[in-house]
Amino acid sequence: MSTQTQFDRLRVVLVNSRNPLNIGAAARAMNNFGCLHLRVVNPYELAFREARSAVGALPLLASAEEFSSVAEAVADCTLVVGTTALSRRDSQHPVRLLDQAAGIIRKRLASSRVALLFGSEKRGLSNEELSHCHWLLRIPTRDEQRSMNLGQAVAVCLYELTRGSKTASRSEKPLAATSGDLERLTSVLLDTLRTGGHLNPIAGRPPKPPHAFLSEEKVRRLVRRLNLSSSDAEIFLGMLRQMLWKLCSGGDPSV
Amino acid sequence: MSTQTQFDRLRVVLVNSRNPLNIGAAARAMNNFGCLHLRVVNPYELAFREARSAVGALPLLASAEEFSSVAEAVADCTLVVGTTALSRRDSQHPVRLLDQAAGIIRKRLASSRVALLFGSEKRGLSNEELSHCHWLLRIPTRDEQRSMNLGQAVAVCLYELTRGSKTASRSEKPLAATSGDLERLTSVLLDTLRTGGHLNPIAGRPPKPPHAFLSEEKVRRLVRRLNLSSSDAEIFLGMLRQMLWKLCSGGDPSV
Repeated sequence: MSTQTQFDRLRVVLVNSRNPLNIGAAARAMNNFGCLHLRVVNPYELAFREARSAVGALPLLASAEEFSSVAEAVADCTLVVGTTALSRRDSQHPVRLLDQAAGIIRKRLASSRVALLFGSEKRGLSNEELSHCHWLLRIPTRDEQRSMNLGQAVAVCLYELTRGSKTASRSEKPLAATSGDLERLTSVLLDTLRTGGHLNPIAGRPPKPPHAFLSEEKVRRLVRRLNLSSSDAEIFLGMLRQMLWKLCSGGDPSV
Repeated sequence: MSTQTQFDRLRVVLVNSRNPLNIGAAARAMNNFGCLHLRVVNPYELAFREARSAVGALPLLASAEEFSSVAEAVADCTLVVGTTALSRRDSQHPVRLLDQAAGIIRKRLASSRVALLFGSEKRGLSNEELSHCHWLLRIPTRDEQRSMNLGQAVAVCLYELTRGSKTASRSEKPLAATSGDLERLTSVLLDTLRTGGHLNPIAGRPPKPPHAFLSEEKVRRLVRRLNLSSSDAEIFLGMLRQMLWKLCSGGDPSV
Protein backbone atom coordinates (compact mmCIF):
# COMPACT_ATOMS: atom_id res chain seq x y z
CA MET A 1 0.00 0.00 0.00
CA SER A 2 1.53 3.29 -1.10
CA THR A 3 0.31 5.05 2.04
CA GLN A 4 2.52 2.91 4.16
CA THR A 5 5.60 3.87 2.21
CA GLN A 6 4.75 7.54 2.70
CA PHE A 7 3.99 7.07 6.38
CA ASP A 8 7.39 5.47 6.87
CA ARG A 9 8.68 9.05 7.02
CA LEU A 10 6.01 10.40 9.37
CA ARG A 11 6.80 10.72 13.08
CA VAL A 12 3.91 11.23 15.47
CA VAL A 13 5.35 13.02 18.51
CA LEU A 14 3.41 13.08 21.79
CA VAL A 15 4.75 15.82 24.04
CA ASN A 16 4.24 15.63 27.81
CA SER A 17 1.43 13.09 27.62
CA ARG A 18 -0.02 12.32 31.03
CA ASN A 19 -2.66 9.65 30.46
CA PRO A 20 -1.87 6.03 29.54
CA LEU A 21 -5.30 5.61 27.94
CA ASN A 22 -4.62 8.52 25.62
CA ILE A 23 -1.18 7.21 24.69
CA GLY A 24 -2.72 3.82 23.97
CA ALA A 25 -5.54 5.39 21.94
CA ALA A 26 -3.08 7.42 19.87
CA ALA A 27 -1.09 4.24 19.16
CA ARG A 28 -4.25 2.40 18.13
CA ALA A 29 -5.22 5.09 15.64
CA MET A 30 -1.67 5.03 14.25
CA ASN A 31 -1.96 1.30 13.79
CA ASN A 32 -5.35 1.68 12.05
CA PHE A 33 -3.87 4.05 9.49
CA GLY A 34 -0.47 2.40 9.06
CA CYS A 35 1.62 5.09 10.71
CA LEU A 36 4.01 3.05 12.83
CA HIS A 37 6.64 5.45 14.18
CA LEU A 38 5.80 6.98 17.55
CA ARG A 39 8.03 9.35 19.51
CA VAL A 40 7.33 10.58 23.01
CA VAL A 41 8.87 13.62 24.64
CA ASN A 42 9.11 13.70 28.39
CA PRO A 43 6.10 11.47 29.06
CA TYR A 44 4.82 10.94 32.55
CA GLU A 45 6.93 7.84 33.19
CA LEU A 46 4.25 5.82 34.95
CA ALA A 47 1.67 6.55 32.26
CA PHE A 48 4.08 5.55 29.54
CA ARG A 49 5.01 2.32 31.26
CA GLU A 50 1.34 1.49 31.85
CA ALA A 51 0.46 2.16 28.22
CA ARG A 52 3.34 -0.04 27.04
CA SER A 53 2.45 -2.91 29.30
CA ALA A 54 -1.34 -2.79 28.76
CA VAL A 55 -3.01 -5.98 27.54
CA GLY A 56 -2.96 -5.92 23.77
CA ALA A 57 -0.46 -3.05 23.66
CA LEU A 58 0.76 -2.59 20.11
CA PRO A 59 4.28 -3.32 18.89
CA LEU A 60 4.56 0.31 17.83
CA LEU A 61 4.25 1.31 21.50
CA ALA A 62 7.03 -1.06 22.48
CA SER A 63 9.27 0.42 19.79
CA ALA A 64 8.34 4.06 20.56
CA GLU A 65 11.39 6.33 20.92
CA GLU A 66 11.75 8.48 24.01
CA PHE A 67 13.31 11.96 24.04
CA SER A 68 13.81 14.55 26.72
CA SER A 69 13.22 17.59 24.48
CA VAL A 70 11.26 18.54 21.39
CA ALA A 71 14.48 19.70 19.71
CA GLU A 72 15.95 16.19 19.89
CA ALA A 73 12.71 14.50 18.89
CA VAL A 74 12.44 16.47 15.64
CA ALA A 75 16.14 16.89 14.79
CA ASP A 76 16.02 14.56 11.75
CA CYS A 77 12.78 16.01 10.32
CA THR A 78 12.59 18.70 7.63
CA LEU A 79 9.06 19.79 8.51
CA VAL A 80 7.67 20.10 12.02
CA VAL A 81 3.94 20.71 12.37
CA GLY A 82 2.26 21.40 15.70
CA THR A 83 -1.41 20.74 16.36
CA THR A 84 -3.43 23.47 18.02
CA ALA A 85 -6.97 24.46 18.86
CA LEU A 86 -6.15 28.14 18.30
CA SER A 87 -7.07 30.11 15.23
CA ARG A 88 -4.66 32.26 13.25
CA ARG A 89 -5.52 35.40 15.12
CA ASP A 90 -4.63 33.92 18.53
CA SER A 91 -1.39 32.38 17.37
CA GLN A 92 2.17 33.54 16.74
CA HIS A 93 2.45 30.94 13.97
CA PRO A 94 0.80 30.46 10.62
CA VAL A 95 -2.17 28.14 11.20
CA ARG A 96 -3.48 25.89 8.44
CA LEU A 97 -6.70 23.92 8.52
CA LEU A 98 -6.22 20.16 8.43
CA ASP A 99 -7.18 19.49 4.81
CA GLN A 100 -4.80 22.10 3.43
CA ALA A 101 -2.08 21.07 5.89
CA ALA A 102 -2.40 17.41 4.90
CA GLY A 103 -1.67 18.21 1.27
CA ILE A 104 1.56 19.96 2.20
CA ILE A 105 2.61 17.22 4.62
CA ARG A 106 1.94 14.48 2.05
CA LYS A 107 4.14 16.23 -0.49
CA ARG A 108 6.97 16.59 1.98
CA LEU A 109 6.70 12.95 3.05
CA ALA A 110 7.53 11.95 -0.51
CA SER A 111 11.10 13.06 0.07
CA SER A 112 11.84 13.54 3.78
CA ARG A 113 10.72 13.13 7.38
CA VAL A 114 7.88 15.10 8.90
CA ALA A 115 7.08 15.39 12.62
CA LEU A 116 3.48 15.91 13.74
CA LEU A 117 3.37 17.19 17.34
CA PHE A 118 0.54 16.72 19.83
CA GLY A 119 0.73 18.52 23.18
CA SER A 120 -0.34 17.49 26.64
CA GLU A 121 -4.00 16.78 27.30
CA LYS A 122 -4.38 19.73 29.66
CA ARG A 123 -2.46 22.55 28.08
CA GLY A 124 -1.54 21.55 24.54
CA LEU A 125 1.87 22.65 23.31
CA SER A 126 3.77 25.36 25.24
CA ASN A 127 5.28 28.38 23.52
CA GLU A 128 8.74 26.84 23.76
CA GLU A 129 7.48 23.60 22.23
CA LEU A 130 5.59 25.47 19.52
CA SER A 131 8.69 27.47 18.62
CA HIS A 132 10.22 24.31 17.13
CA CYS A 133 7.35 24.08 14.65
CA HIS A 134 7.36 25.47 11.14
CA TRP A 135 3.63 26.05 11.30
CA LEU A 136 0.51 24.80 13.01
CA LEU A 137 -2.41 22.66 12.00
CA ARG A 138 -5.95 23.02 13.26
CA ILE A 139 -8.77 20.52 13.01
CA PRO A 140 -11.85 22.56 12.10
CA THR A 141 -13.87 21.98 15.26
CA ARG A 142 -16.56 24.46 16.26
CA ASP A 143 -15.76 27.51 18.34
CA GLU A 144 -17.89 26.37 21.28
CA GLN A 145 -15.68 23.30 21.85
CA ARG A 146 -12.42 23.51 19.99
CA SER A 147 -10.17 21.23 21.97
CA MET A 148 -10.26 17.56 21.00
CA ASN A 149 -9.39 14.42 22.88
CA LEU A 150 -5.79 13.40 22.09
CA GLY A 151 -6.52 9.97 20.59
CA GLN A 152 -9.37 11.38 18.52
CA ALA A 153 -7.20 14.23 17.22
CA VAL A 154 -4.52 11.74 16.16
CA ALA A 155 -7.16 9.58 14.42
CA VAL A 156 -8.65 12.51 12.50
CA CYS A 157 -5.24 13.82 11.39
CA LEU A 158 -4.05 10.43 10.16
CA TYR A 159 -7.36 9.78 8.41
CA GLU A 160 -6.99 13.05 6.52
CA LEU A 161 -3.36 12.28 5.67
CA THR A 162 -4.28 8.93 4.08
CA ARG A 163 -6.98 10.58 2.00
CA GLY A 164 -6.35 10.50 -1.73
CA SER A 165 -2.82 9.23 -1.24
CA LYS A 166 -1.49 8.21 -4.62
CA THR A 167 1.77 6.55 -5.45
CA ALA A 168 4.46 8.84 -4.13
CA SER A 169 4.53 12.00 -6.22
CA ARG A 170 8.11 12.80 -6.93
CA SER A 171 9.18 16.16 -5.67
CA GLU A 172 11.65 18.29 -7.59
CA LYS A 173 12.09 20.78 -4.83
CA PRO A 174 15.47 21.37 -3.24
CA LEU A 175 16.24 19.33 -0.16
CA ALA A 176 14.72 20.98 2.91
CA ALA A 177 16.80 21.90 5.94
CA THR A 178 16.43 19.54 8.89
CA SER A 179 15.37 20.79 12.30
CA GLY A 180 18.93 20.18 13.44
CA ASP A 181 20.20 22.63 10.75
CA LEU A 182 17.56 25.16 11.75
CA GLU A 183 18.39 24.88 15.42
CA ARG A 184 22.08 25.57 14.66
CA LEU A 185 21.05 28.58 12.62
CA THR A 186 18.72 29.78 15.39
CA SER A 187 21.49 29.49 17.93
CA VAL A 188 24.02 31.53 15.89
CA LEU A 189 21.34 34.11 15.08
CA LEU A 190 20.56 34.45 18.79
CA ASP A 191 24.26 34.93 19.57
CA THR A 192 24.52 37.56 16.86
CA LEU A 193 21.44 39.40 18.09
CA ARG A 194 22.68 39.31 21.66
CA THR A 195 26.08 40.60 20.62
CA GLY A 196 24.43 43.30 18.55
CA GLY A 197 22.40 44.33 21.58
CA HIS A 198 19.15 43.49 19.86
CA LEU A 199 17.88 40.69 22.01
CA ASN A 200 18.14 41.92 25.57
CA PRO A 201 18.62 45.33 27.09
CA ILE A 202 22.27 46.07 27.75
CA ALA A 203 23.23 47.62 31.08
CA GLY A 204 24.20 51.24 30.78
CA ARG A 205 22.32 51.75 27.52
CA PRO A 206 19.11 53.75 27.31
CA PRO A 207 16.26 51.23 27.27
CA LYS A 208 14.73 50.53 23.86
CA PRO A 209 11.05 50.39 23.06
CA PRO A 210 9.69 46.95 24.00
CA HIS A 211 8.99 45.90 20.41
CA ALA A 212 12.72 46.12 19.70
CA PHE A 213 13.38 43.02 21.77
CA LEU A 214 12.81 39.51 20.60
CA SER A 215 12.40 36.49 22.81
CA GLU A 216 14.24 33.27 22.05
CA GLU A 217 10.95 31.58 21.13
CA LYS A 218 10.09 34.40 18.75
CA VAL A 219 13.41 34.04 16.96
CA ARG A 220 13.05 30.27 16.75
CA ARG A 221 9.58 30.60 15.24
CA LEU A 222 10.84 33.20 12.80
CA VAL A 223 13.57 30.87 11.52
CA ARG A 224 11.06 28.02 11.06
CA ARG A 225 8.77 30.23 9.01
CA LEU A 226 11.51 30.80 6.42
CA ASN A 227 11.03 27.42 4.81
CA LEU A 228 14.76 27.13 4.15
CA SER A 229 16.38 24.60 1.91
CA SER A 230 19.40 22.80 3.27
CA SER A 231 21.78 24.81 1.08
CA ASP A 232 20.18 28.19 1.90
CA ALA A 233 20.41 27.38 5.60
CA GLU A 234 24.12 26.80 5.04
CA ILE A 235 24.51 30.19 3.32
CA PHE A 236 22.75 32.01 6.15
CA LEU A 237 24.81 30.22 8.73
CA GLY A 238 27.96 31.40 6.93
CA MET A 239 26.68 34.99 6.79
CA LEU A 240 25.80 35.04 10.46
CA ARG A 241 29.09 33.52 11.59
CA GLN A 242 30.94 36.18 9.63
CA MET A 243 28.83 38.95 11.19
CA LEU A 244 29.26 37.48 14.64
CA TRP A 245 33.01 37.22 14.18
CA LYS A 246 33.13 40.82 13.01
CA LEU A 247 30.94 42.01 15.89
CA CYS A 248 33.00 40.15 18.47
CA SER A 249 36.32 41.31 17.10
CA GLY A 250 34.95 44.84 17.33
CA GLY A 251 36.44 44.99 13.82
CA ASP A 252 37.18 48.22 12.05
CA PRO A 253 34.81 48.15 9.10
CA SER A 254 36.90 50.62 7.12
CA VAL A 255 39.79 48.18 6.64
CA MET B 1 -22.73 27.98 10.46
CA SER B 2 -24.28 25.83 7.78
CA THR B 3 -22.78 22.63 9.22
CA GLN B 4 -24.68 23.04 12.43
CA THR B 5 -27.97 23.44 10.66
CA GLN B 6 -27.24 20.30 8.68
CA PHE B 7 -26.20 18.42 11.79
CA ASP B 8 -29.50 19.30 13.45
CA ARG B 9 -30.88 16.45 11.38
CA LEU B 10 -28.11 13.95 12.10
CA ARG B 11 -28.63 11.30 14.81
CA VAL B 12 -25.59 9.46 16.10
CA VAL B 13 -26.85 6.11 17.40
CA LEU B 14 -24.68 4.02 19.75
CA VAL B 15 -25.93 0.45 19.84
CA ASN B 16 -25.13 -1.79 22.80
CA SER B 17 -22.26 0.34 24.06
CA ARG B 18 -20.52 -1.22 27.04
CA ASN B 19 -17.87 1.27 28.13
CA PRO B 20 -18.65 4.62 29.79
CA LEU B 21 -15.33 6.04 28.57
CA ASN B 22 -16.26 5.26 24.97
CA ILE B 23 -19.70 6.78 25.36
CA GLY B 24 -18.12 9.90 26.84
CA ALA B 25 -15.53 10.05 24.07
CA ALA B 26 -18.19 9.74 21.37
CA ALA B 27 -20.13 12.59 23.01
CA ARG B 28 -17.01 14.75 23.14
CA ALA B 29 -16.32 14.27 19.42
CA MET B 30 -19.96 15.12 18.67
CA ASN B 31 -19.59 18.29 20.67
CA ASN B 32 -16.36 19.16 18.80
CA PHE B 33 -18.08 18.95 15.45
CA GLY B 34 -21.45 20.42 16.42
CA CYS B 35 -23.50 17.26 16.18
CA LEU B 36 -25.63 17.44 19.30
CA HIS B 37 -28.21 14.66 19.03
CA LEU B 38 -27.19 11.37 20.56
CA ARG B 39 -29.32 8.25 20.73
CA VAL B 40 -28.43 5.10 22.59
CA VAL B 41 -29.93 1.68 22.02
CA ASN B 42 -29.91 -0.78 24.87
CA PRO B 43 -26.79 0.56 26.54
CA TYR B 44 -25.23 -1.25 29.44
CA GLU B 45 -27.19 0.68 32.08
CA LEU B 46 -24.36 1.17 34.51
CA ALA B 47 -21.98 2.39 31.80
CA PHE B 48 -24.53 4.86 30.52
CA ARG B 49 -25.25 6.23 34.01
CA GLU B 50 -21.53 6.54 34.69
CA ALA B 51 -20.91 8.38 31.43
CA ARG B 52 -23.80 10.77 32.14
CA SER B 53 -22.69 11.55 35.64
CA ALA B 54 -18.96 11.89 34.87
CA VAL B 55 -17.29 15.16 35.86
CA GLY B 56 -17.60 17.52 32.91
CA ALA B 57 -20.18 15.33 31.16
CA LEU B 58 -21.66 17.19 28.24
CA PRO B 59 -25.24 18.47 28.05
CA LEU B 60 -25.70 16.35 24.94
CA LEU B 61 -25.17 13.26 27.10
CA ALA B 62 -27.78 14.40 29.58
CA SER B 63 -30.25 14.95 26.77
CA ALA B 64 -29.42 11.68 24.97
CA GLU B 65 -32.49 9.64 24.02
CA GLU B 66 -32.72 6.01 25.07
CA PHE B 67 -34.34 3.26 22.98
CA SER B 68 -34.69 -0.45 23.44
CA SER B 69 -34.37 -1.34 19.76
CA VAL B 70 -32.67 -0.05 16.62
CA ALA B 71 -36.04 0.06 14.87
CA GLU B 72 -37.40 2.62 17.35
CA ALA B 73 -34.18 4.62 17.38
CA VAL B 74 -34.21 5.18 13.62
CA ALA B 75 -37.96 5.40 13.06
CA ASP B 76 -37.97 9.11 12.18
CA CYS B 77 -34.94 8.96 9.84
CA THR B 78 -35.07 8.65 6.04
CA LEU B 79 -31.59 7.21 5.71
CA VAL B 80 -29.92 4.77 8.10
CA VAL B 81 -26.21 4.12 7.66
CA GLY B 82 -24.30 1.51 9.67
CA THR B 83 -20.58 1.68 10.30
CA THR B 84 -18.52 -1.45 9.72
CA ALA B 85 -14.94 -2.66 9.51
CA LEU B 86 -15.93 -5.21 6.87
CA SER B 87 -15.27 -4.82 3.20
CA ARG B 88 -17.85 -5.23 0.49
CA ARG B 89 -17.13 -8.88 -0.15
CA ASP B 90 -17.79 -9.88 3.47
CA SER B 91 -21.02 -7.97 3.73
CA GLN B 92 -24.63 -8.49 2.68
CA HIS B 93 -24.98 -4.74 2.28
CA PRO B 94 -23.52 -2.22 -0.10
CA VAL B 95 -20.43 -0.77 1.61
CA ARG B 96 -19.23 2.74 0.79
CA LEU B 97 -15.95 4.29 1.86
CA LEU B 98 -16.34 7.22 4.23
CA ASP B 99 -15.63 10.07 1.83
CA GLN B 100 -18.18 8.88 -0.72
CA ALA B 101 -20.68 8.05 2.02
CA ALA B 102 -20.32 11.51 3.54
CA GLY B 103 -21.33 13.18 0.29
CA ILE B 104 -24.56 11.19 0.16
CA ILE B 105 -25.33 11.77 3.85
CA ARG B 106 -24.74 15.52 3.55
CA LYS B 107 -27.19 15.75 0.66
CA ARG B 108 -29.83 13.87 2.56
CA LEU B 109 -29.35 16.00 5.67
CA ALA B 110 -30.35 19.04 3.66
CA SER B 111 -33.92 17.77 3.71
CA SER B 112 -34.39 15.03 6.30
CA ARG B 113 -33.04 13.04 9.22
CA VAL B 114 -30.16 10.60 8.89
CA ALA B 115 -29.10 8.01 11.49
CA LEU B 116 -25.46 6.95 11.74
CA LEU B 117 -25.11 3.70 13.70
CA PHE B 118 -22.10 2.52 15.68
CA GLY B 119 -22.07 -1.01 17.12
CA SER B 120 -20.71 -2.38 20.36
CA GLU B 121 -16.97 -2.18 21.00
CA LYS B 122 -16.54 -5.93 20.91
CA ARG B 123 -18.69 -7.16 18.08
CA GLY B 124 -19.82 -4.18 16.05
CA LEU B 125 -23.37 -4.30 14.68
CA SER B 126 -25.21 -7.65 14.61
CA ASN B 127 -26.97 -8.91 11.50
CA GLU B 128 -30.32 -7.92 12.99
CA GLU B 129 -29.06 -4.42 13.73
CA LEU B 130 -27.47 -4.12 10.28
CA SER B 131 -30.73 -5.13 8.65
CA HIS B 132 -32.19 -1.74 9.60
CA CYS B 133 -29.53 0.03 7.57
CA HIS B 134 -29.86 1.19 3.97
CA TRP B 135 -26.15 0.67 3.43
CA LEU B 136 -22.86 0.61 5.31
CA LEU B 137 -19.96 2.94 5.66
CA ARG B 138 -16.34 1.93 6.15
CA ILE B 139 -13.47 4.11 7.33
CA PRO B 140 -10.50 3.19 5.11
CA THR B 141 -8.22 1.69 7.73
CA ARG B 142 -5.52 -0.78 6.74
CA ASP B 143 -6.24 -4.50 6.46
CA GLU B 144 -3.86 -5.42 9.29
CA GLN B 145 -5.94 -3.43 11.82
CA ARG B 146 -9.36 -2.52 10.53
CA SER B 147 -11.39 -2.08 13.67
CA MET B 148 -11.28 1.38 15.24
CA ASN B 149 -11.90 2.59 18.76
CA LEU B 150 -15.53 3.78 19.06
CA GLY B 151 -14.79 7.39 20.03
CA GLN B 152 -12.17 7.69 17.30
CA ALA B 153 -14.51 6.25 14.67
CA VAL B 154 -17.20 8.79 15.65
CA ALA B 155 -14.63 11.62 15.47
CA VAL B 156 -13.37 10.61 12.02
CA CYS B 157 -16.91 10.22 10.60
CA LEU B 158 -18.07 13.59 11.90
CA TYR B 159 -14.88 15.27 10.71
CA GLU B 160 -15.50 13.94 7.21
CA LEU B 161 -19.16 15.02 7.33
CA THR B 162 -18.21 18.62 8.16
CA ARG B 163 -15.70 18.67 5.29
CA GLY B 164 -16.47 21.04 2.50
CA SER B 165 -18.74 23.14 4.64
CA LYS B 166 -17.90 26.69 3.67
CA THR B 167 -16.70 27.82 7.07
CA ALA B 168 -14.05 25.13 7.02
CA SER B 169 -12.14 26.42 4.02
CA ARG B 170 -11.22 29.93 5.09
CA SER B 171 -7.56 30.59 4.49
CA GLU B 172 -5.72 31.72 7.59
CA LYS B 173 -2.51 32.80 5.88
CA PRO B 174 -0.69 35.98 6.90
CA LEU B 175 -0.23 38.89 4.50
CA ALA B 176 2.76 38.33 2.24
CA ALA B 177 5.61 40.84 1.99
CA THR B 178 5.51 43.07 -1.09
CA SER B 179 8.38 43.21 -3.54
CA GLY B 180 9.13 46.66 -2.15
CA ASP B 181 9.54 45.21 1.36
CA LEU B 182 11.81 42.49 -0.01
CA GLU B 183 13.95 44.91 -1.97
CA ARG B 184 14.48 47.10 1.13
CA LEU B 185 15.47 44.01 3.05
CA THR B 186 17.82 42.89 0.26
CA SER B 187 19.49 46.27 0.18
CA VAL B 188 20.14 46.39 3.94
CA LEU B 189 21.34 42.78 3.88
CA LEU B 190 23.79 43.66 1.10
CA ASP B 191 25.08 46.64 3.08
CA THR B 192 25.52 44.45 6.14
CA LEU B 193 27.34 41.77 4.20
CA ARG B 194 29.63 44.32 2.57
CA THR B 195 30.40 45.91 5.92
CA GLY B 196 31.01 42.50 7.43
CA GLY B 197 33.45 41.72 4.63
CA HIS B 198 31.35 38.87 3.40
CA LEU B 199 30.33 40.11 0.01
CA ASN B 200 33.45 41.39 -1.70
CA PRO B 201 37.11 40.93 -1.05
CA ILE B 202 38.48 43.71 1.15
CA ALA B 203 41.78 45.29 0.19
CA GLY B 204 44.62 44.32 2.47
CA ARG B 205 42.89 41.15 3.63
CA PRO B 206 44.00 37.70 2.51
CA PRO B 207 41.63 36.60 -0.27
CA LYS B 208 38.90 34.19 0.74
CA PRO B 209 37.89 31.06 -1.10
CA PRO B 210 35.51 31.95 -3.96
CA HIS B 211 32.47 30.24 -2.46
CA ALA B 212 32.62 32.63 0.47
CA PHE B 213 31.44 35.50 -1.74
CA LEU B 214 27.89 36.10 -2.81
CA SER B 215 26.83 38.18 -5.78
CA GLU B 216 24.10 40.78 -5.41
CA GLU B 217 21.78 38.67 -7.57
CA LYS B 218 22.39 35.61 -5.47
CA VAL B 219 21.44 37.51 -2.32
CA ARG B 220 18.32 38.91 -3.97
CA ARG B 221 17.16 35.47 -5.05
CA LEU B 222 17.92 34.15 -1.60
CA VAL B 223 15.67 36.74 0.03
CA ARG B 224 12.84 35.93 -2.42
CA ARG B 225 13.05 32.24 -1.63
CA LEU B 226 12.24 32.96 2.02
CA ASN B 227 8.58 33.48 1.29
CA LEU B 228 8.36 36.17 3.97
CA SER B 229 5.22 37.65 5.40
CA SER B 230 5.01 41.38 5.63
CA SER B 231 5.53 41.40 9.41
CA ASP B 232 8.47 38.97 9.32
CA ALA B 233 10.18 41.10 6.67
CA GLU B 234 9.83 44.02 9.09
CA ILE B 235 11.45 42.03 11.92
CA PHE B 236 14.42 41.02 9.76
CA LEU B 237 14.87 44.58 8.58
CA GLY B 238 15.07 45.69 12.21
CA MET B 239 17.60 43.00 13.04
CA LEU B 240 19.81 43.86 10.11
CA ARG B 241 19.73 47.60 10.72
CA GLN B 242 20.82 47.00 14.29
CA MET B 243 23.69 44.75 13.17
CA LEU B 244 24.71 47.24 10.52
CA TRP B 245 24.69 50.08 13.02
CA LYS B 246 26.78 48.02 15.41
CA LEU B 247 29.22 46.99 12.67
CA CYS B 248 29.61 50.56 11.45
CA SER B 249 30.08 51.99 14.90
CA GLY B 250 32.82 49.40 15.44
CA GLY B 251 30.90 48.99 18.67
CA ASP B 252 32.40 47.35 21.69
CA PRO B 253 30.18 44.30 22.19
CA SER B 254 31.15 43.95 25.83
CA VAL B 255 29.35 47.17 26.80
